[in-house]
Amino acid sequence: MDSFEFRETGAPTPRFGELLVRVHYLSVDPYMRGRMRDAESYAEPWDVGDPMRAGIVGEVLESNHDDFEAGDIVTGDGLWAEHAVVDGDEFRTINPDLAPVSTALGVLGMPGITAYYGVNDIIAPDPGDTVVISAAAGAVGSVAGQLAQLAGARVVGTAGSDTKCDWLTDDLGFEAAINYKTTDDLGAAMREACPDGVDGYFDNVGGPITDAVWPLLNVRASVGVCGQIALYNATEVPTGPRKLAQLIQTRATVEGLLVSDFPQEEWGTAIKRMGGFIAEGDLEYRENVVEGIENAPDAFLGLFEGENIGKQLVQVREA
Amino acid sequence: MDSFEFRETGAPTPRFGELLVRVHYLSVDPYMRGRMRDAESYAEPWDVGDPMRAGIVGEVLESNHDDFEAGDIVTGDGLWAEHAVVDGDEFRTINPDLAPVSTALGVLGMPGITAYYGVNDIIAPDPGDTVVISAAAGAVGSVAGQLAQLAGARVVGTAGSDTKCDWLTDDLGFEAAINYKTTDDLGAAMREACPDGVDGYFDNVGGPITDAVWPLLNVRASVGVCGQIALYNATEVPTGPRKLAQLIQTRATVEGLLVSDFPQEEWGTAIKRMGGFIAEGDLEYRENVVEGIENAPDAFLGLFEGENIGKQLVQVREA
Repeated sequence: MDSFEFRETGAPTPRFGELLVRVHYLSVDPYMRGRMRDAESYAEPWDVGDPMRAGIVGEVLESNHDDFEAGDIVTGDGLWAEHAVVDGDEFRTINPDLAPVSTALGVLGMPGITAYYGVNDIIAPDPGDTVVISAAAGAVGSVAGQLAQLAGARVVGTAGSDTKCDWLTDDLGFEAAINYKTTDDLGAAMREACPDGVDGYFDNVGGPITDAVWPLLNVRASVGVCGQIALYNATEVPTGPRKLAQLIQTRATVEGLLVSDFPQEEWGTAIKRMGGFIAEGDLEYRENVVEGIENAPDAFLGLFEGENIGKQLVQVREA
Repeated sequence: MDSFEFRETGAPTPRFGELLVRVHYLSVDPYMRGRMRDAESYAEPWDVGDPMRAGIVGEVLESNHDDFEAGDIVTGDGLWAEHAVVDGDEFRTINPDLAPVSTALGVLGMPGITAYYGVNDIIAPDPGDTVVISAAAGAVGSVAGQLAQLAGARVVGTAGSDTKCDWLTDDLGFEAAINYKTTDDLGAAMREACPDGVDGYFDNVGGPITDAVWPLLNVRASVGVCGQIALYNATEVPTGPRKLAQLIQTRATVEGLLVSDFPQEEWGTAIKRMGGFIAEGDLEYRENVVEGIENAPDAFLGLFEGENIGKQLVQVREA
């Protein structure tokens, strides 16, 4: 908490092409931890003192962009703020009649698309395949597991509480769920849950969970590395068993996955398909909503404690 | 050496479809170490007390197979033996006028095909790409590096002696070669040799060399894991820096590579193309030949000390 500061500033004014948005929901996501590090990555690091950038859903108060008018509900990358001036070209309107607008930050937004891209393009499970999902009760994992099931896979998840595991097996229909916090021997638990080995692994976590999955990889297995949240707060270089020799035996493919590589023109199709799955009851989602922008830092830090089930959001109260 | 035993047995007799071959050359290869371990892998482990299997080149003394006659020079998988009875279906004749017959175990055999497959199908370098090859002076690496150069890549190799490094840069035209045994800071040496990062990495070694390459991987880099010789004699699970997070930033792909996955019907094309490169002076090779089957164990163990330049062979003397 000492790392965050709440600042009062004057209301900003939109210039040509910009929108003034009153923020209803803002997102907290694990990837933000990477932007807060002064190291080379796929995006520029954020500077200390800059506001936290985040996906937001909000209402247009003032538009200087032809595609939008006051009252539109929009989403895109904004700030942890009550009001934000944003580039209209980077925003899109959402239809509040289709689904709760908050889903634009979760199942029908970046995390859901990440899951869609990873499962369909990287893991690409065949019917009967065993697919393991780490952080399976999270915003990305819970969608990924269900999409893998819709493709006919037998899905095993890991999560950090019995409540989460029960949700995965009882509500989402996962074949098995492993509570990594209470399981002494992750390797044995994973072997038991995956008697036919692992054909696909959608990894959001890394570390010891990945160590447990690795020896079970089948020939031509696919690993999509989406996140490594277990390591993001490491203060020294994390070490673990060397893994590459196993790839020779299995000719498995390991691929990094970043949602921004999923072509923009396919996002609409993905959102439409997943909206259809939700409407048909084939895709469930949960949101964990805290109230008040002043609670955003706690909500963010809670991600690393595994406090959320499904998508973690912050609802910003009307001033 | 205590692990090997030389046995005198009666001359075996070929049955229907089999050949009796007098062995001229037998191969020692790092992969054999994996077969000598009682662990699940892509092939069955060998039993203690069984003869060492190996690629051989030899002369047919007696044929019970329609495709062969006495006097043919043949190659295929045989044994560390002076005479071997083999399945004719698994053997092919070689033309001694095209190239020295020993090359059927090296540049125009399994190691060369491994390099060909890895460079063309897994690394697939574009002109101007930087490609790193570990064990670059070995049977696979030296061919892989030259094939990558023929594809237009800028190639950097690692090897274990100044003599090897000089061969790579002075004779084979590598951009740089790093002697990993005398370099204090492999990471710094690799950074210096690869100022534009690494687009392709053909890994025969693993361990600290791979640790040095990893932070330099560029976006969409390709890693082919062909061998991990640095780890094959490990008595405990080798550990090292965790590497998967880097794949998210780079969306690099890491793939295990096994020559047996390269379609049999394409081997002939690959051999013909590489034979053409040799004839045109675009592909150099070296062979390290020891005499006498009794020296095969030492030659094999020497692989793990990096004693060979190019392909390590054992020439079997006429009894």
